[in-house]
Amino acid sequence: MISFESDYIAGAHPKILQRLAETNMECVKGYGFDIYSESAKEKIKKACGREDVEVEFLVGGTQTNAVVISTMLSDEEGVIAAKTGHINGHEAGAIEYTGHKVLEVPQVNGKLQAADVKTLMEDFYGDDNHDHMVFPGMVYISHPTEYGTLYTKDELTGLSELCRSYDIPLFMDGARLGYGLMSRDTDVTLQDIAKLCDVFYIGGTKVGALCGEAVVFTKNNRPRHFMTSVKKRGALLAKGRLMGVQFDTLFTDDLYFEISRYAIERAEELKAMFHELGMEFFLESPTNQQFVILENSQMQALQEKVRFGFWEKYDENHTVVRFATSWSTTEEDMKALREALTAL
Amino acid sequence: MISFESDYIAGAHPKILQRLAETNMECVKGYGFDIYSESAKEKIKKACGREDVEVEFLVGGTQTNAVVISTMLSDEEGVIAAKTGHINGHEAGAIEYTGHKVLEVPQVNGKLQAADVKTLMEDFYGDDNHDHMVFPGMVYISHPTEYGTLYTKDELTGLSELCRSYDIPLFMDGARLGYGLMSRDTDVTLQDIAKLCDVFYIGGTKVGALCGEAVVFTKNNRPRHFMTSVKKRGALLAKGRLMGVQFDTLFTDDLYFEISRYAIERAEELKAMFHELGMEFFLESPTNQQFVILENSQMQALQEKVRFGFWEKYDENHTVVRFATSWSTTEEDMKALREALTAL
Amino acid sequence: MISFESDYIAGAHPKILQRLAETNMECVKGYGFDIYSESAKEKIKKACGREDVEVEFLVGGTQTNAVVISTMLSDEEGVIAAKTGHINGHEAGAIEYTGHKVLEVPQVNGKLQAADVKTLMEDFYGDDNHDHMVFPGMVYISHPTEYGTLYTKDELTGLSELCRSYDIPLFMDGARLGYGLMSRDTDVTLQDIAKLCDVFYIGGTKVGALCGEAVVFTKNNRPRHFMTSVKKRGALLAKGRLMGVQFDTLFTDDLYFEISRYAIERAEELKAMFHELGMEFFLESPTNQQFVILENSQMQALQEKVRFGFWEKYDENHTVVRFATSWSTTEEDMKALREALTAL
Amino acid sequence: MISFESDYIAGAHPKILQRLAETNMECVKGYGFDIYSESAKEKIKKACGREDVEVEFLVGGTQTNAVVISTMLSDEEGVIAAKTGHINGHEAGAIEYTGHKVLEVPQVNGKLQAADVKTLMEDFYGDDNHDHMVFPGMVYISHPTEYGTLYTKDELTGLSELCRSYDIPLFMDGARLGYGLMSRDTDVTLQDIAKLCDVFYIGGTKVGALCGEAVVFTKNNRPRHFMTSVKKRGALLAKGRLMGVQFDTLFTDDLYFEISRYAIERAEELKAMFHELGMEFFLESPTNQQFVILENSQMQALQEKVRFGFWEKYDENHTVVRFATSWSTTEEDMKALREALTAL
Repeated sequence: MISFESDYIAGAHPKILQRLAETNMECVKGYGFDIYSESAKEKIKKACGREDVEVEFLVGGTQTNAVVISTMLSDEEGVIAAKTGHINGHEAGAIEYTGHKVLEVPQVNGKLQAADVKTLMEDFYGDDNHDHMVFPGMVYISHPTEYGTLYTKDELTGLSELCRSYDIPLFMDGARLGYGLMSRDTDVTLQDIAKLCDVFYIGGTKVGALCGEAVVFTKNNRPRHFMTSVKKRGALLAKGRLMGVQFDTLFTDDLYFEISRYAIERAEELKAMFHELGMEFFLESPTNQQFVILENSQMQALQEKVRFGFWEKYDENHTVVRFATSWSTTEEDMKALREALTAL
Repeated sequence: MISFESDYIAGAHPKILQRLAETNMECVKGYGFDIYSESAKEKIKKACGREDVEVEFLVGGTQTNAVVISTMLSDEEGVIAAKTGHINGHEAGAIEYTGHKVLEVPQVNGKLQAADVKTLMEDFYGDDNHDHMVFPGMVYISHPTEYGTLYTKDELTGLSELCRSYDIPLFMDGARLGYGLMSRDTDVTLQDIAKLCDVFYIGGTKVGALCGEAVVFTKNNRPRHFMTSVKKRGALLAKGRLMGVQFDTLFTDDLYFEISRYAIERAEELKAMFHELGMEFFLESPTNQQFVILENSQMQALQEKVRFGFWEKYDENHTVVRFATSWSTTEEDMKALREALTAL
Repeated sequence: MISFESDYIAGAHPKILQRLAETNMECVKGYGFDIYSESAKEKIKKACGREDVEVEFLVGGTQTNAVVISTMLSDEEGVIAAKTGHINGHEAGAIEYTGHKVLEVPQVNGKLQAADVKTLMEDFYGDDNHDHMVFPGMVYISHPTEYGTLYTKDELTGLSELCRSYDIPLFMDGARLGYGLMSRDTDVTLQDIAKLCDVFYIGGTKVGALCGEAVVFTKNNRPRHFMTSVKKRGALLAKGRLMGVQFDTLFTDDLYFEISRYAIERAEELKAMFHELGMEFFLESPTNQQFVILENSQMQALQEKVRFGFWEKYDENHTVVRFATSWSTTEEDMKALREALTAL
Repeated sequence: MISFESDYIAGAHPKILQRLAETNMECVKGYGFDIYSESAKEKIKKACGREDVEVEFLVGGTQTNAVVISTMLSDEEGVIAAKTGHINGHEAGAIEYTGHKVLEVPQVNGKLQAADVKTLMEDFYGDDNHDHMVFPGMVYISHPTEYGTLYTKDELTGLSELCRSYDIPLFMDGARLGYGLMSRDTDVTLQDIAKLCDVFYIGGTKVGALCGEAVVFTKNNRPRHFMTSVKKRGALLAKGRLMGVQFDTLFTDDLYFEISRYAIERAEELKAMFHELGMEFFLESPTNQQFVILENSQMQALQEKVRFGFWEKYDENHTVVRFATSWSTTEEDMKALREALTAL
């Protein structure tokens, strides 16, 4: 059955598998000290337009969020996130497992508003008893957000300035960063992110890799003895080459950007198709995830032919569903989806 | 440069890469619900000779130890391990990070003695104030141990019976399990382990996979909502197929056992070579790791030509070094090593 | 200066000090195995109208919340609380420190609504991906709430039934329980609470003791090896007699209820006085805390003569302030406050 | 029955109760901001001969160890302790609960040897793979030790210099500090300790208080936002006055030292009595705890008349038992013990 269920339904981009095969028999050092990891880090630095950032590889998104947040926060601190932020609702309490609170803030289309964060900060420092409260010690955002939306450069600058005024880091979860960067409706570049965020990660798992996320520390702020903290959290890969080879491939000849752009093109076709068919959008996202509202019986009929994601109940008779494109979405998938939708 | 540094210096066994490539474009479910994971689980159950065990995949050894131990212990409990146990010395405190103590017990050649564990149990329950102490709640052993040694079936039975008499689980870290099973000097089979241990894992990372360990719960004792606990620890892989395909391949046509036997054969050649050359053994292991004592200047000379592992200082002038074989050790490696050693 | 700042500004009720002095030279067992702790437990059981409950003493409120919640939740679970719940905002992240999430729910006058909790439960179990989310494993309420309000017996029954239908415990933080029980506007008795809640605590610190909270487990549900878990959290008092003597005194001749009633009478006088003086109520509570809105310059003038609590900013020119009564509030305090307010 | 079971069998020194009563009705600030806590801190600074130390109060010993160790260690660090150290064996894993490992080192008469600590440090930094190990980040000693023994000034200086050479703090658990300071066989003063240790605590619970330990940070090294970290660990007392009044009394007119000296005098009488009666010492301690070996039937006979502590099995027929003196030991207790022992 064709599937638009998520952007991690297929394996890896074929070039990654090919490169894994080519380098397979070479004997390299473990734990990320291999030549491919080194090379990948250099290429990522270049893509960020900064020689002075530090790059580290981790295996998955939840792991990355937990490792980064728990090693950068002080004991008394928690992390600010949108109510809909991935760390707040869909990571099984991985942040709290590290002993830190997620400080929930309202959101608009999945995005944190600088004004809301400012209010939280002012309320906190305005409270005489704030010593009894969790200190706001970091701001977490996802870009694209869980709803596929994007921060504008202005919005990102506002959050960045606010964070700097309180001397707390701005952390961007870039599990789907490629799709954000290649959106037709963004004015934010990777270089901007490297400038405006204190730490962020470039998602691999959802953008063509088998697994892997590349964390970028932009202010010489990688926690001391980071490798030991990673090991302590069970997150250190013995065969670090698996990360190295994948990211080295993704950042060779702009592959990461190319496959992201491809997914965006398919997503734009999807939007056009949905409009053409008169479907109701829940949220018209500028990235690779599209959210539409289906009548429940239509939804059930469609399920017979296509896989897609259930997002949330809309009302008694309707459901919000998600269609995601990726590097692996084919022309045939698009055609088959159109047929299935037309037949509803 | 040729390398005997460890058993994770090369990529994956070529059949694994090939299978990853063959299945790459198929759309499958995430988080371990893919058909390959299902198939791999069935094959592992078969290899264990038990239809009723439960199999789960995790990414690496330290992660597996931390997840298994912390989800199986009660709040008041700690885990008994040899002083030289991997969890006690070389996992950066990953067990303590989960809030549980490692209860250190002496060892002989890397092995726990049932008698020492018994003494600990009796001392604990004999102490009127044991409510102020960490309850011994699990026994951790590694097989092969950190020194490449193996438990006999009798020893394993002794530990197993002791654990059952106190109603605590026996957990076997099988990061290098294949090499233990294929040793010429063992009377312990995978079926024995599935019978005698309450939980154990079959190591992939060090036995031909890119990453991955297969945990086997043998007593219908998989912790409730295990998947959520795994997610909470940042250990859930989105593309679970990566685990599934690898273990499905390893357990097709006995590949796991074949490559382990190959490594054992190379290790036996290594031992014969060391004996022939009059080298001093620190510990003559029955598995894929061999420990010899080198004079420091010899060691430095050898380093110019061969990579190997430094184990520990022996005395002022000597060092214990480790040579490990694996599926990727070649005839050329063996020949080159002999030349390098002869030239010393 | 007279003070209505809180209900923990004075020492202990004189009878407690007297009893501590009388029993001081007796040699008793440590860690809560003393005769006074035993006696106090029996008296508390009697007051609860239940011989089969289990009573344990802890030192303070935050500690009690953290110990109870973390020992009763399973690994995959979090605790549901009102956004304004003490554990959510004013305990410095003590629950998260134990590795568990506080699941925030809206509130009305500081109270959780059964309907809101039900929605959360249904949304959780209605989500196909709830394995990636924190399981709702307990409901936390405070009675009186942080705003001095009280649950009715109907409301409590509604929450209790909801909890039972999902098989999760209902936990009541009774830091100020005495003031709730002696309110003129409550239909909830201690016996009701012992029936409707699965676990709750009877606050000592804010109701006449130097320190101490009495936890009551009502369903034979005290966690196994609870004493060791308490010790592990640094919460076990060597001289448990300090708890025993205090609670034994508080539950002799209904002292706990008497001093709570006294505080309620002073609070009712306070309300009458505020009404008479035409002051604006933020929230007219039925317990010992009263919240009024003061114009900022008035507030500053009043601070010269009386101590009281700042609750929150109301608007640019007004502030919500809190006046609390207790067993130690005197006639003179009341008179002096009236004079100070009249002079504004 | 008379009791030599421990030094926390009686209540508080009568002067403490008297002072609690005198100050009881005064309205003071909560959470340690009261005038008694302030005054107590000043007196303790004076006793330490240092105006620049920082003093904080906590409730009990295990809590203090867990709070101090977990707030002073970095993420990658653990704490070095003797195998017999209280934190290693008798605190139910309270340190591990905070996520940090106790690095066990051999001991002599309960004491850590600087040479053994040095070996651990050198082994750690000598290991190429120490990034996979817990970093040794603090040295924990108890003075008196769990066996009542004492460090000499030379030994303490040795440990202190070693710690400074590695830039890690030396932490002294002074649960029974008074008895150490007033021993006839010590050359270590409180001022020495304030100079040689980076952090230590002055035990109250076992030296005349109802509860309470005074932590002294000697190097301007109190962790940032310490109060919030204390709250987060459930260790912040609302009525901080309970700590303040007790320590203010103990440090007025040298009461702490006087009652410690009194206990030492009784302990010396005890030793003389044991020698006179030909009893066998397990360890002749210079402080308030004496350890003798009793034949099991004698031990049972003695139990009929006197309470004492069971320490450990000596052999099949003998047991090590402990007799502890304190401020509350009376002449009558001494006489009755002599009679009971003579009658054996």
